[in-house]
Amino acid sequence: MFKANKQRIQTHIESLARFTATPGHGTTRLSYSKEDESARHYIKQEMRNLSLVVREDAVGNIYGRLEGLLKNVPAVIIGSHFDSVPNGGSFDGPAGVVTGLEVAALFQEYGLKPRYPLEVIAMIEEEGSRFGGGVLGSRMIAGQITPTDLHEMKDSTGQSAADAMAKMGFNAADIGSALRTASDVKAFLELHIEQGPLLEEAAQDVGIVQSIVGMTEIRITVRGKSGHAGTTPMKGRADALVAAVSILKELPGLVLGESDMPVLTVGKLNVLPNGANVIPNQVDFTVDIRSANNGTIRRILGKIKQLAADAIMPGISFSTEELLYAEPVGMSTTIQSLLIGNCEKLGLRHRKMVSGAGHDAMIFASFTDTGLIFVPSKDGISHTPEEWTDYAQLQKGIELAFETIVQLTEAKEKSSNQ
Amino acid sequence: MFKANKQRIQTHIESLARFTATPGHGTTRLSYSKEDESARHYIKQEMRNLSLVVREDAVGNIYGRLEGLLKNVPAVIIGSHFDSVPNGGSFDGPAGVVTGLEVAALFQEYGLKPRYPLEVIAMIEEEGSRFGGGVLGSRMIAGQITPTDLHEMKDSTGQSAADAMAKMGFNAADIGSALRTASDVKAFLELHIEQGPLLEEAAQDVGIVQSIVGMTEIRITVRGKSGHAGTTPMKGRADALVAAVSILKELPGLVLGESDMPVLTVGKLNVLPNGANVIPNQVDFTVDIRSANNGTIRRILGKIKQLAADAIMPGISFSTEELLYAEPVGMSTTIQSLLIGNCEKLGLRHRKMVSGAGHDAMIFASFTDTGLIFVPSKDGISHTPEEWTDYAQLQKGIELAFETIVQLTEAKEKSSNQ
Repeated sequence: MFKANKQRIQTHIESLARFTATPGHGTTRLSYSKEDESARHYIKQEMRNLSLVVREDAVGNIYGRLEGLLKNVPAVIIGSHFDSVPNGGSFDGPAGVVTGLEVAALFQEYGLKPRYPLEVIAMIEEEGSRFGGGVLGSRMIAGQITPTDLHEMKDSTGQSAADAMAKMGFNAADIGSALRTASDVKAFLELHIEQGPLLEEAAQDVGIVQSIVGMTEIRITVRGKSGHAGTTPMKGRADALVAAVSILKELPGLVLGESDMPVLTVGKLNVLPNGANVIPNQVDFTVDIRSANNGTIRRILGKIKQLAADAIMPGISFSTEELLYAEPVGMSTTIQSLLIGNCEKLGLRHRKMVSGAGHDAMIFASFTDTGLIFVPSKDGISHTPEEWTDYAQLQKGIELAFETIVQLTEAKEKSSNQ
Repeated sequence: MFKANKQRIQTHIESLARFTATPGHGTTRLSYSKEDESARHYIKQEMRNLSLVVREDAVGNIYGRLEGLLKNVPAVIIGSHFDSVPNGGSFDGPAGVVTGLEVAALFQEYGLKPRYPLEVIAMIEEEGSRFGGGVLGSRMIAGQITPTDLHEMKDSTGQSAADAMAKMGFNAADIGSALRTASDVKAFLELHIEQGPLLEEAAQDVGIVQSIVGMTEIRITVRGKSGHAGTTPMKGRADALVAAVSILKELPGLVLGESDMPVLTVGKLNVLPNGANVIPNQVDFTVDIRSANNGTIRRILGKIKQLAADAIMPGISFSTEELLYAEPVGMSTTIQSLLIGNCEKLGLRHRKMVSGAGHDAMIFASFTDTGLIFVPSKDGISHTPEEWTDYAQLQKGIELAFETIVQLTEAKEKSSNQ
């Protein structure tokens, strides 16, 4: 039986974790940042060391390709993203990128030759931490983003995604060349940390994801009128933060009445001008809503819009933008079957599960057979510096991915004469 | 009768307004920033043009001194601050600095020689926009700040006030040398925009401030537990923003029951890590409370602390810091009388009034005779790019300041032989 190399896996994870804007305070690696550039250099170098043919698409996703024995056939892609949330962990994203590198390393080490081409992928901006939204790298691959979108998406300093990528030599106008389709992708496989407590609680090795919950992210902007904190009487103020709070205080209650355990989070909130003695004239905040049930999400969204309408008062206005809307997505039943069979072969304790988090896999599922493997998250936490998966657990997940990629690419040993 | 030069006043105001980090979006001039440095250079140059002896104290306040005929006597100081709030206007602070420059220009132009030395001052960090608190420049002059305080005060990037001033060549350790006392200051006079609607509504030229309201600024920090927005069930979350909102929603109501029209403002609020799909683990916000009555402020503070105590729940903690506490402060009755007499002499429509905003004058009042002149604010607004005072109005206020400074310095014409 083939064994993955735990030391090599650990080295990759630790190396990528060093490319952070917040050393000592977790991984902060925003897309198209200095840290992105350093991580990008590392990943491309490691791909070259594995004799993969390296290329970056027009928007900055990285590919390392191992040609197959068959010509003009679609590729099998394995990988994940390499951006992070602010002050996140070492595993969310990198675990899947490193899985791709290790699978390619095992192909080389064991002299395997795929019939279908194998591509390792490292994608940008899955978290949406810089430009909002999320799964941007895979949405660009799936043709869901236009150059106009990239000019309109802005980071917190007002720089557009198009400008940020141009500074690194990429080209929003050429986004069409980043498109992948059913005709050139045979399958996509992603390994990701669970980011929840279920696998650890049940002492299971891996989760085989059946479906990913539907999710939406909206941004509400409240506009009011600025003024001096000392000389403006309370009566007649149009304080944007006071108006925002009148909505914020109602939000957690909106999900309590629902039976399918939806979750709602306001993670990002900005006040302008944010001076201690100035009445805020603008507040914007995101609302992230997730449920296995589309109807639940739509119902909660409707209630939020009603809250904003009810909160209008003299001098105060609200606007709402939908940054992301994704319906629940099922994973390929064929690949689920392969994964379960391989778990049994490898002796891995496994369970089927629903993913509460969005992943690039849900975007790939729109045009190709897609599989998603979860490995355990210590204490169920993620998006913090304490995020952790034991390397032995990650190794087991990677061995499952490897076995499955061998099947999907119909690999054979070089020495054989098939 | 001496006339101030309206064109010269306008040129100074417009020149200072160009030193902003947000061109086209008002004045953003934080202490010890690049824009501070440019404004500082301009002010020192203008002082030199007026034959003033220029010096900067150890912490960055700028003085331009005109020696008096008498030796070893205390100086009369006139001026204000030159920092701004983010996206503020051209007049809050600069109006008073320009008053100092114009008074010195009139001394030169009309050949006046003061018996007591005249000092024009331009102070840093009155707004507290960079390091919190406020009136920092004058508090350092009054000996209310220690080097340790300057190391503990941090800006939003975590840089201390001591480090920021060191980068511009100032020295927190030498703060003692910035001290001014009753023995070397005879009087302080400040001109400031009203920042409220009263003068304009009554078509008055100037306000003679009798007292400044008491004020306090506290910072409340809420700490919770981070986690993934999709995989962390609502039950068991310790969301710092949800906890903060449970306090924020009660705050405006706290002042409604009070009879003396106190005001309460949350102007600054920061969420960490501020990612759309991350449960916030920390929220901090300021609360600014002002009233003519000390007891009112103390009562509201007590209610806020009770709200924080009541909001504690598993995983959530609160801490409260008092960034600023200032009791109501009376202005010198001697200087008020001089100002009123000069208004009558100059034919200025005037009123006595209470200041709802804090000013450097309230700090100077702790150790020397202090006067404060208000000029009208168009539409009563300030701390916004639209902040405005007609130059003709500013000229009238400056002429009042000039007449009063002539009296306080006991100036005489050079040609006379007194």
